[in-house]
Amino acid sequence: MELLEKFKQQTFKIKAYNYALNVVGWDSATEAPRNAFQRRSEMMGVLSGELFQLNTSKESQEVVYGLFERLEELSDLDKKQVIKAKKGLDKIIKIPQDEFVEYNKLVGLSQRLWEDAKENNDFELFRPNLEKLIDFNKKFVSYYEIDDHPYNVLLDDYEEGMSMKEYDAFFDTLKRDLVPFVKDVLNSGKVLNDAFALDSFDKAKQKEFCDYLIDVLAFDRNSGVMKESVHPFTWNTHPGDVRFTTRYLENMVFSSIFAAIHELGHATYEQQIDNALNDTILGGGSSMGLHESQSRFYENIVGRSLEFWEVHYPKMLELFPEQLKNVSLDDFYRATNKVEASLIRVEADELTYPLHIMLRYEIERMLMSDEVEVKDLPKLWNSKIVEYLGIEPKNDAEGVLQDVHWSAGLLGYFPTYALGSAYAAQFYYAMKKEINVEQLIKENKISEINAWLKDKIHQYGQSKTPKELLLDVTGEPFDAKYYVQYLKEKYGKLYL
Amino acid sequence: MELLEKFKQQTFKIKAYNYALNVVGWDSATEAPRNAFQRRSEMMGVLSGELFQLNTSKESQEVVYGLFERLEELSDLDKKQVIKAKKGLDKIIKIPQDEFVEYNKLVGLSQRLWEDAKENNDFELFRPNLEKLIDFNKKFVSYYEIDDHPYNVLLDDYEEGMSMKEYDAFFDTLKRDLVPFVKDVLNSGKVLNDAFALDSFDKAKQKEFCDYLIDVLAFDRNSGVMKESVHPFTWNTHPGDVRFTTRYLENMVFSSIFAAIHELGHATYEQQIDNALNDTILGGGSSMGLHESQSRFYENIVGRSLEFWEVHYPKMLELFPEQLKNVSLDDFYRATNKVEASLIRVEADELTYPLHIMLRYEIERMLMSDEVEVKDLPKLWNSKIVEYLGIEPKNDAEGVLQDVHWSAGLLGYFPTYALGSAYAAQFYYAMKKEINVEQLIKENKISEINAWLKDKIHQYGQSKTPKELLLDVTGEPFDAKYYVQYLKEKYGKLYL
Repeated sequence: MELLEKFKQQTFKIKAYNYALNVVGWDSATEAPRNAFQRRSEMMGVLSGELFQLNTSKESQEVVYGLFERLEELSDLDKKQVIKAKKGLDKIIKIPQDEFVEYNKLVGLSQRLWEDAKENNDFELFRPNLEKLIDFNKKFVSYYEIDDHPYNVLLDDYEEGMSMKEYDAFFDTLKRDLVPFVKDVLNSGKVLNDAFALDSFDKAKQKEFCDYLIDVLAFDRNSGVMKESVHPFTWNTHPGDVRFTTRYLENMVFSSIFAAIHELGHATYEQQIDNALNDTILGGGSSMGLHESQSRFYENIVGRSLEFWEVHYPKMLELFPEQLKNVSLDDFYRATNKVEASLIRVEADELTYPLHIMLRYEIERMLMSDEVEVKDLPKLWNSKIVEYLGIEPKNDAEGVLQDVHWSAGLLGYFPTYALGSAYAAQFYYAMKKEINVEQLIKENKISEINAWLKDKIHQYGQSKTPKELLLDVTGEPFDAKYYVQYLKEKYGKLYL
Repeated sequence: MELLEKFKQQTFKIKAYNYALNVVGWDSATEAPRNAFQRRSEMMGVLSGELFQLNTSKESQEVVYGLFERLEELSDLDKKQVIKAKKGLDKIIKIPQDEFVEYNKLVGLSQRLWEDAKENNDFELFRPNLEKLIDFNKKFVSYYEIDDHPYNVLLDDYEEGMSMKEYDAFFDTLKRDLVPFVKDVLNSGKVLNDAFALDSFDKAKQKEFCDYLIDVLAFDRNSGVMKESVHPFTWNTHPGDVRFTTRYLENMVFSSIFAAIHELGHATYEQQIDNALNDTILGGGSSMGLHESQSRFYENIVGRSLEFWEVHYPKMLELFPEQLKNVSLDDFYRATNKVEASLIRVEADELTYPLHIMLRYEIERMLMSDEVEVKDLPKLWNSKIVEYLGIEPKNDAEGVLQDVHWSAGLLGYFPTYALGSAYAAQFYYAMKKEINVEQLIKENKISEINAWLKDKIHQYGQSKTPKELLLDVTGEPFDAKYYVQYLKEKYGKLYL
């Protein structure tokens, strides 16, 4: 079919533009000097414009809508591609190109500005850009002419099929079944000592340990890179080039380690996707939530297990004999799972983490419903964190300015983090029925866990939706009860 | 004028594509994992094709040739742009797009292959690609339909106005006036001891010293980055983002230091170009030779001077007290200027360096005249190096495979290196008439030398040709006698 051939050529060309934009993005986030940014923003504006034009050209529309009318003639994979392309196109063609270009420039500048604002605890510095970013998002949603709440439209962008209704239900379950449990843990009077972890840990040696973790998690070094950035993230163009970052804080050794394991989870997912999906638009992880389920699985279920540290604590002792001389394996393991009310989401423990997400979800919901103005966010943030965790930020850097997401225009993304943890627990119980997870961790055979995940989840990329994957892998639809069960089992043992 | 406005828009768009391709290039050379390359090459092929189309579109031709007919109506700067654009277009429109795309892919793959070939001393691994690269170059030249020797066409590409005739004359001067002098030095019986420099120098500390040099040479850290790569190079997109690399060899401490100073010379040139030239096609250094004159000036005239080490040797002593405990300042200075017959161009001393270039010039000349086949290059190379320096490579890695240039399709580039050194000497004698160069180095005020070079040379970018710059700065045309004079003065003192 000629139309299909055109679609594939078009896809290949679009991929080339995205490739270049992605590499420039990686460069900006990890390397480019300060004075590069103004010019980079101008240049990327031009290329984003070109890409927009490619995506929305009359020819592209003819191809996509033409194929959509002949779906029944297509293979299953092509059908999925066309449906996805059509959904994207429906949205994108309604945005005027000049606004799209302007928005991309704004995002480029805002991320740098956010860094400065965070560094200087100066929300006002970032505020005008955040307002513009939100206005753009609202305006774009209005262009789509979808008859739904604007926030629902954004939520669906990051996790297909999820809306405020589903998320409300999810967070309600957590509130009902988990929040009382968290309260019990926080009030248990049992305090795990992790003072040693705030000792001074040489950054170069932390880096050495993170480098060691690359092999522990059986990440393919020939298809990846580890680097450092302010906010850890994973980046990829295709399974042969998957990169991740961590960050080294001298007095918070757990920060670099668990950020590395978390990002290695994302990165392993990307490395294990079937190469055949490379030239389709179905490469990459199935959804944000699915992606987060993998990073959280490796970070929390693997990386914070006793079995994991049974094997790898000796390496830590080798690198940090002084700092750990009075710390037993059990002390260390417990410290990695210490629960406490804390301010910074990315440093939060596994148990209180969903409360941080709930806060962001509620704020975004209000922003998108015009129930709060940007200028009032610092106050709102602080009052909510007091309400949920009983503690108050000293400044906006540890409050409303802590996350990179909004500066990148990502609204509706946060809730997928909590959803991901819940997915992870459900997958974990399915995995346990087939392989002895704890034993494999203990034997330093994580590659076999990777293989199970590749077989069941990773290889499929976006050719299966989250709903399909949950059903195929676990035999039932998503159910938050596994998440609650997992947390209660683990933290019940540790604290109650 | 509407045509001029179109030209400027077109230029801006082309710059955006080049920007992205450049960033991807930097990424490939310094960071991308091994398995990234195949895909990168495909993606860059698409974008190079797009760029080629932009450059050669009917609209672009109308604009450039249209403006060329109305040169007298243009400002001086616009006139220069149009003449340059027309010259480029004359060449490029004659190359079929598919060949251009294929060539760019080939270059991408060849650089990786060259690295492998060099690592494994395996010329045969690289040979088929080198043959293809040379064939492409010949074919492209034939498309230009310029009535001249193919090598002349390439030589002119890298240094406008230079041909075999000029280079033959230049190298003849060196042969007549310099070669006997080099022989005297090599036969002087005076051996400068630099054994200490082959001791083990911790790479992290070498890096610390190179980082220190960034400030010594007053390089703007907010507009630049230093990194590591197999072959040191300088990279830039505009004066706000100029990057350079060096390489650290544990047993060759001079290698990282002088590569860093050399690249800092290139990088300082780029940082000091007038920002107003950014949106024109006259940004960047005036020519390859001019660029090399700056890197060689900083590396040899500044960096290998006694005055330089009077100020900075204490820092070396601080970092390497053990290795340098029996080395006086004078020993150290002399060791940085040790003359010897050696195999590796980038490690060659200042005096024998032009012989390495002469060899490459002669080989390229033969290749482009079909006087030698690629398969015979290793033999030819080895026989010539024996002839000029009396030593023979143990393997091709230290012979014909040592340089990156041919793998990047750069033929006709090498001779600009020797020309650059000669330019540098002529500029140096002009500079000495106006500022006390040695005193400024001694007082660690290199920023004042930078300022002189910015004022006389750097700011102009490509808005002045090499010939114009030589005349304006030194009051006379290029004359190789200054180069010979400089070398004889310096090495006469050291050796005779």
